[in-house]
Amino acid sequence: MKNKTKLRFGLPKGSLQEATIEKMAKAGFNIQVSSRSYVPYVDDEELEIRLIRAQEISRYVEHGYLDCGITGYDWIQENNSKVHEVGEFLFSKATRQPARWVLAVPENSPVQSAKDLQGKRIATEVVGLTKRYLKKHGVKAEVEFSWGATEFKAHELVDAIVELTETGSSLRANKLRIVDTLLSSTPRLIANHVTWKDKWKRHKIETMALLLKGALEAEAKVGLKMNIAEKNLANLLQSLPALRNPTISNLSLKGWVAVETIIDEHVVRELIPQLKAAGAEGIIEYPLNKVVY
Amino acid sequence: MKNKTKLRFGLPKGSLQEATIEKMAKAGFNIQVSSRSYVPYVDDEELEIRLIRAQEISRYVEHGYLDCGITGYDWIQENNSKVHEVGEFLFSKATRQPARWVLAVPENSPVQSAKDLQGKRIATEVVGLTKRYLKKHGVKAEVEFSWGATEFKAHELVDAIVELTETGSSLRANKLRIVDTLLSSTPRLIANHVTWKDKWKRHKIETMALLLKGALEAEAKVGLKMNIAEKNLANLLQSLPALRNPTISNLSLKGWVAVETIIDEHVVRELIPQLKAAGAEGIIEYPLNKVVY
Amino acid sequence: MKNKTKLRFGLPKGSLQEATIEKMAKAGFNIQVSSRSYVPYVDDEELEIRLIRAQEISRYVEHGYLDCGITGYDWIQENNSKVHEVGEFLFSKATRQPARWVLAVPENSPVQSAKDLQGKRIATEVVGLTKRYLKKHGVKAEVEFSWGATEFKAHELVDAIVELTETGSSLRANKLRIVDTLLSSTPRLIANHVTWKDKWKRHKIETMALLLKGALEAEAKVGLKMNIAEKNLANLLQSLPALRNPTISNLSLKGWVAVETIIDEHVVRELIPQLKAAGAEGIIEYPLNKVVY
Amino acid sequence: MKNKTKLRFGLPKGSLQEATIEKMAKAGFNIQVSSRSYVPYVDDEELEIRLIRAQEISRYVEHGYLDCGITGYDWIQENNSKVHEVGEFLFSKATRQPARWVLAVPENSPVQSAKDLQGKRIATEVVGLTKRYLKKHGVKAEVEFSWGATEFKAHELVDAIVELTETGSSLRANKLRIVDTLLSSTPRLIANHVTWKDKWKRHKIETMALLLKGALEAEAKVGLKMNIAEKNLANLLQSLPALRNPTISNLSLKGWVAVETIIDEHVVRELIPQLKAAGAEGIIEYPLNKVVY
Amino acid sequence: MKNKTKLRFGLPKGSLQEATIEKMAKAGFNIQVSSRSYVPYVDDEELEIRLIRAQEISRYVEHGYLDCGITGYDWIQENNSKVHEVGEFLFSKATRQPARWVLAVPENSPVQSAKDLQGKRIATEVVGLTKRYLKKHGVKAEVEFSWGATEFKAHELVDAIVELTETGSSLRANKLRIVDTLLSSTPRLIANHVTWKDKWKRHKIETMALLLKGALEAEAKVGLKMNIAEKNLANLLQSLPALRNPTISNLSLKGWVAVETIIDEHVVRELIPQLKAAGAEGIIEYPLNKVVY
Amino acid sequence: MKNKTKLRFGLPKGSLQEATIEKMAKAGFNIQVSSRSYVPYVDDEELEIRLIRAQEISRYVEHGYLDCGITGYDWIQENNSKVHEVGEFLFSKATRQPARWVLAVPENSPVQSAKDLQGKRIATEVVGLTKRYLKKHGVKAEVEFSWGATEFKAHELVDAIVELTETGSSLRANKLRIVDTLLSSTPRLIANHVTWKDKWKRHKIETMALLLKGALEAEAKVGLKMNIAEKNLANLLQSLPALRNPTISNLSLKGWVAVETIIDEHVVRELIPQLKAAGAEGIIEYPLNKVVY
Repeated sequence: MKNKTKLRFGLPKGSLQEATIEKMAKAGFNIQVSSRSYVPYVDDEELEIRLIRAQEISRYVEHGYLDCGITGYDWIQENNSKVHEVGEFLFSKATRQPARWVLAVPENSPVQSAKDLQGKRIATEVVGLTKRYLKKHGVKAEVEFSWGATEFKAHELVDAIVELTETGSSLRANKLRIVDTLLSSTPRLIANHVTWKDKWKRHKIETMALLLKGALEAEAKVGLKMNIAEKNLANLLQSLPALRNPTISNLSLKGWVAVETIIDEHVVRELIPQLKAAGAEGIIEYPLNKVVY
Repeated sequence: MKNKTKLRFGLPKGSLQEATIEKMAKAGFNIQVSSRSYVPYVDDEELEIRLIRAQEISRYVEHGYLDCGITGYDWIQENNSKVHEVGEFLFSKATRQPARWVLAVPENSPVQSAKDLQGKRIATEVVGLTKRYLKKHGVKAEVEFSWGATEFKAHELVDAIVELTETGSSLRANKLRIVDTLLSSTPRLIANHVTWKDKWKRHKIETMALLLKGALEAEAKVGLKMNIAEKNLANLLQSLPALRNPTISNLSLKGWVAVETIIDEHVVRELIPQLKAAGAEGIIEYPLNKVVY
Repeated sequence: MKNKTKLRFGLPKGSLQEATIEKMAKAGFNIQVSSRSYVPYVDDEELEIRLIRAQEISRYVEHGYLDCGITGYDWIQENNSKVHEVGEFLFSKATRQPARWVLAVPENSPVQSAKDLQGKRIATEVVGLTKRYLKKHGVKAEVEFSWGATEFKAHELVDAIVELTETGSSLRANKLRIVDTLLSSTPRLIANHVTWKDKWKRHKIETMALLLKGALEAEAKVGLKMNIAEKNLANLLQSLPALRNPTISNLSLKGWVAVETIIDEHVVRELIPQLKAAGAEGIIEYPLNKVVY
Repeated sequence: MKNKTKLRFGLPKGSLQEATIEKMAKAGFNIQVSSRSYVPYVDDEELEIRLIRAQEISRYVEHGYLDCGITGYDWIQENNSKVHEVGEFLFSKATRQPARWVLAVPENSPVQSAKDLQGKRIATEVVGLTKRYLKKHGVKAEVEFSWGATEFKAHELVDAIVELTETGSSLRANKLRIVDTLLSSTPRLIANHVTWKDKWKRHKIETMALLLKGALEAEAKVGLKMNIAEKNLANLLQSLPALRNPTISNLSLKGWVAVETIIDEHVVRELIPQLKAAGAEGIIEYPLNKVVY
Repeated sequence: MKNKTKLRFGLPKGSLQEATIEKMAKAGFNIQVSSRSYVPYVDDEELEIRLIRAQEISRYVEHGYLDCGITGYDWIQENNSKVHEVGEFLFSKATRQPARWVLAVPENSPVQSAKDLQGKRIATEVVGLTKRYLKKHGVKAEVEFSWGATEFKAHELVDAIVELTETGSSLRANKLRIVDTLLSSTPRLIANHVTWKDKWKRHKIETMALLLKGALEAEAKVGLKMNIAEKNLANLLQSLPALRNPTISNLSLKGWVAVETIIDEHVVRELIPQLKAAGAEGIIEYPLNKVVY
Repeated sequence: MKNKTKLRFGLPKGSLQEATIEKMAKAGFNIQVSSRSYVPYVDDEELEIRLIRAQEISRYVEHGYLDCGITGYDWIQENNSKVHEVGEFLFSKATRQPARWVLAVPENSPVQSAKDLQGKRIATEVVGLTKRYLKKHGVKAEVEFSWGATEFKAHELVDAIVELTETGSSLRANKLRIVDTLLSSTPRLIANHVTWKDKWKRHKIETMALLLKGALEAEAKVGLKMNIAEKNLANLLQSLPALRNPTISNLSLKGWVAVETIIDEHVVRELIPQLKAAGAEGIIEYPLNKVVY
């Protein structure tokens, strides 16, 4: 089989590809994809990268063609793959929400719940998930594989669709209504069960998971520094629990201290006005590359 | 009218769009524009974003269709809009210069000042501004609206143009000479007068202005750290007024201190050689996300 | 000749252009290239930028049309230019490897060393370098200038090629085997010999070299901070020589200190697991703009 | 003024540009537009081409900066230009319909006719046309210039729009309803009144109009040939008036003739089944470059 | 159901889309696809166009959501759809070959025929076709759906692939060997069985088939005219059977005739030298729009 | 060497590639270039196509790696290649002019003829041609190879350039003046001298030359038909020598004849008004695919 001293790692080709390669670079692994070759370059001799469609990665990890890979929870479930899940990641800093597979119908459809689908026709890319969902609700309906443009079909060709959405804005723009959520999905690092029993490989995978987690953690966090008069410090720290475990250091200016901490980036827009109100001055926010607790 | 608990915010569509959305993200508001929908997604339920041409935003803020918006000072003036100006921003880190509407003529034109335009024909996108400028100088000339390619017209079709420039390089490449500057323009955050009297909305707008200002401030500034022998510290601080209010901390190495401060990025290229000359070592410059005084 | 108070600086047009302009911006010099003009804008009145093909820069620096310029070591050698070399830079953070001009042949070619080229035909863009290489090995072969698609020629039109490669992946994809390396090449800042004797110009060039070096140094390095119990500190520092000269500061939490240092980014992926094992907590990696020792 | 032996000809820059240059080539005048120059090359030494926005051409023809030009009837009307109209053309072979400026409102708007616009606000690119239309209907309403994305405004920012449409599909996709048509517009060849009195120039313009008309005519027509038994010929010609003035010639096969004619391309799809039914065989349709009656 | 006086026509979205719309235009039906709408415009009020993936069209024709459609024979078979096949077309003028689904393996694979696949794993987009093929050969193997990049999988992830090819050049470039052809596929016009019984709809579909066939026929044919001395005519016609049923007409030059005919474009390159040898002069080849026998 | 029954044919890669492949298709040889392979597909089993830079083709034809190829006369001369020239072609229908290598200087340069170049520096892509030109004029000057952007160099880096131009518009836009023409160049079909002696190969090449010539001839020509009263016919033919050897046929309308001929497309724009004046009616111009005399 594969060389013991190399780890074959599958990354998702296509829509997630650019984001994944960027995250890998932040974790410390620089990958270069060439249009002339299916085998990308990576600056780690212990790794062999393969770009494979997200829909297929769990299948090839299960069969051992890949030692491990990054793919969505949705496709692990759709493929019903027997793999070891090493970790969960959230890639989208902007929305901080997992992608969701939802049941959707035209705005004016009579369908209000799964039950109303009895005898209907549903188009989706995740036929397996949809069938299991219908079975769970005791509903019989025809489920057909959709090769694309699924949202458009809900109006003319089928009665409902099961489609992926993040913010729901594309469904809204297509005059569709969400009836139910079948599955929330986030990217996962998965490993083959045999690989996971190999000590060297498991250690390598765990290190990569640690660094990737550190890089993703850092995307959602920022460093914050500010100066404050010593007399206001206790008040500041008490009233703002977000500032946990700050580093406090003395300033050359008597009676003043510098406070530094790491916090979630998405609370900053509410925190900064409060910090100013509490007497903080010279507030600085700076970016991070990695955060490892 | 509009929902009291939502703020309708107009951002400039077109050439400024990408920069504005990037600045908003730095301020903490992530916006996603979809090609399928005119209503962008924003990760703040209190906001409703609209993308509207910069030329029109002040008009729609004045009429109350928008609560507030970001647009150029030039178009507020051209439209003669009655709006509340909340703040001024400088978007271009590179040039650190406002855009200017200038009167320009071919290099070999006899026109040397506004006075020489008597009886001439001028093409421009800002017909109102140009007419007011001519009136101020007591000059009568025909001003015609230019739908584009204005620079080219100065050579054949009209006697002079009033055109937007930042560095002047496009005018130079077209063999045009700047005669006068009519208006310097920077991006402004403006609010509708009624909106501004609403306590909740005003607070929301002021918070956004604070965060946006903090993000833009941070683009023009950097953090600077260095180590220096304690005996050289006084000399360093005295001779380099740019290093105002630094944080001084002790190093583990006896007799040495670390100096840290926030300074304008554009002085760094002159400052670093001086710092080295003054005995500083291990000089580090790092990026900032926000600076709020 | 050129104005004494302006420095005419040549940057490589083409494949290196974007990277060079990005590095210049990091060094503090913002350049804007306009499609309408061959003379880019730079926010420094003491500079005049020219974009010229990397292959030609050393020739124009030698003749004094440019005061200085950035180009590859390969083309300085190929042109045999008499110029002053001010400094060497490594642009590619990802691979941390210089580009190499290599002698390559089809995988199944009998050619195993330079000697086997006797009487053969070689295609290359660097005819001069290749002829000198053959002469050094006492080999007579025909060298012809290749206008492009050199890798393809090795299979049909010539016996061997001398081609540029970084990771070798394009050669591998084309079923070519590397026989020998003729030259490793990195970007260089070079100056005209007369310019170098001009005090003002030399000082200007040296300052730019310092800043550019600081910016490139910063790309390969990161800041690292962590907290550790005081009792574990000595052990940590002793076992990890990469953490040289750290800044140690006290935390508000008794018995704990903060450790901060600057290290090579490419060791981070191995260091972080070790730091955790040694008792470090709250490990933070942050990016740098410049590092000047 | 301009050289008597050169005709300065304005063509529309922008959305109509490619189509116009293609039609000119079909008429026999090959034009090459260079990104580096505002003055296109044309293979006729008696012509000087200028590319100017369609909105502005009639203005510059009126003032004599151009001898003649091609622009839409809409902009001649909007600018109220005093020019000589030489000819009308239909550029779009596919739809065979003139573009129309229509008054449109949201599908569910109460506005049913011009009268319902009293006191309302209308956005449009053709402010002059719209104001005249309202005046004709005795309606007072505010008309504001729209810089773009006009269709979107009808839903939120204004009560109605006046917008250009060809097939109406974009309006329908935006859920807008057409209330009235203000103007149908086709491309026109126009000339300056003084130019038109110059014998040489007028002859040149008329020749170009003839050739352009011939080229456009040919786009909408095709050649049709078929074989038919002589005995069926009279019946064929009688029942199919579209086949006017055909050329009849004898075939080598006794009793058979070849019929050839020029007809409108858009009747072919109905004609061919009828021809077959009438006994025609070997029906051939072939393309034309020019048709001049 | 659908309006009796409208025919709902499905065209393949995606890779065949542009070619299909071009052929439809040649047949006389001009279609405009808008990025804003899923319903294209067509200049025939009796038609409603839908763009649907080629893989799905036969399914929706079978169910009656579409009256008829154009799709590949391969997907009709893969979907096992019960539809009426109206006609077969060959779209690619260049290769004049149908697309083929072939079984392919790496060049050095031991697999020489279907029999060698026993117990192997095969990746393909046409799972149904592949399973039927294996069954026919009495072979048991695992067939898995491939989401893309199938050619690459043959080297690492599976033992064989079933993939679409036209000239085989992509397979060759990927070092794959064709073992067998499962199916040759050409575009087909298909109709729903109920639709086909409706007199008006059937007539409409047959007319479209006639015109489309005429347009495609014309792509593969050309008109040929030449002059020849009467005494050489008999010899010319006898020796060149390709010139069947030519039109012969007299020239004004005594003793000379003009010969005109329609022939396959792909024989022209061999015919012209022969025609010259036989005494033909002034040989003219001209393009055709439609050929209907 | 190469297979006797295959002809290896080199076509110019790059700027001429698209035009050449289009001409080859018109001649009857359909070529498909794949991004994944250097060997294009051609629908003729007797041909093997290679895409090679125009600058190099004559060199590889001379050495016998190619049997024949299409390249510019300029590069045959620059390379001084010993090849058999089979035919000359003119590709550009629009300008009907060969490309020219010209000596150019800034508009205000003192250089007025080759003689003024004594001791100067010249940049060019055709170093060999330029040196021979200077030698012929008894001038000594430095000639350096230009890697691109040659026009820009004439203003700053060198005294003159030798550059390729078709219409001269790019030179004019760059404020350069043409001093002299060194060489006019058209595409040529060339063959290796050994190949040319092979009977089968020579016949194959001659056939291709015939067809290619026929296709190019057809691009510059059109078919013209018109009806005219018999009494005006003699006058028409006498006064219009361009209408040589027309085909005259009788119309069904008594006293009228149809006149048909093939003429140069570029005289049509002058001819049509004259034909109308002479009484011609129903004038039709139609396109041609091939014209072989």
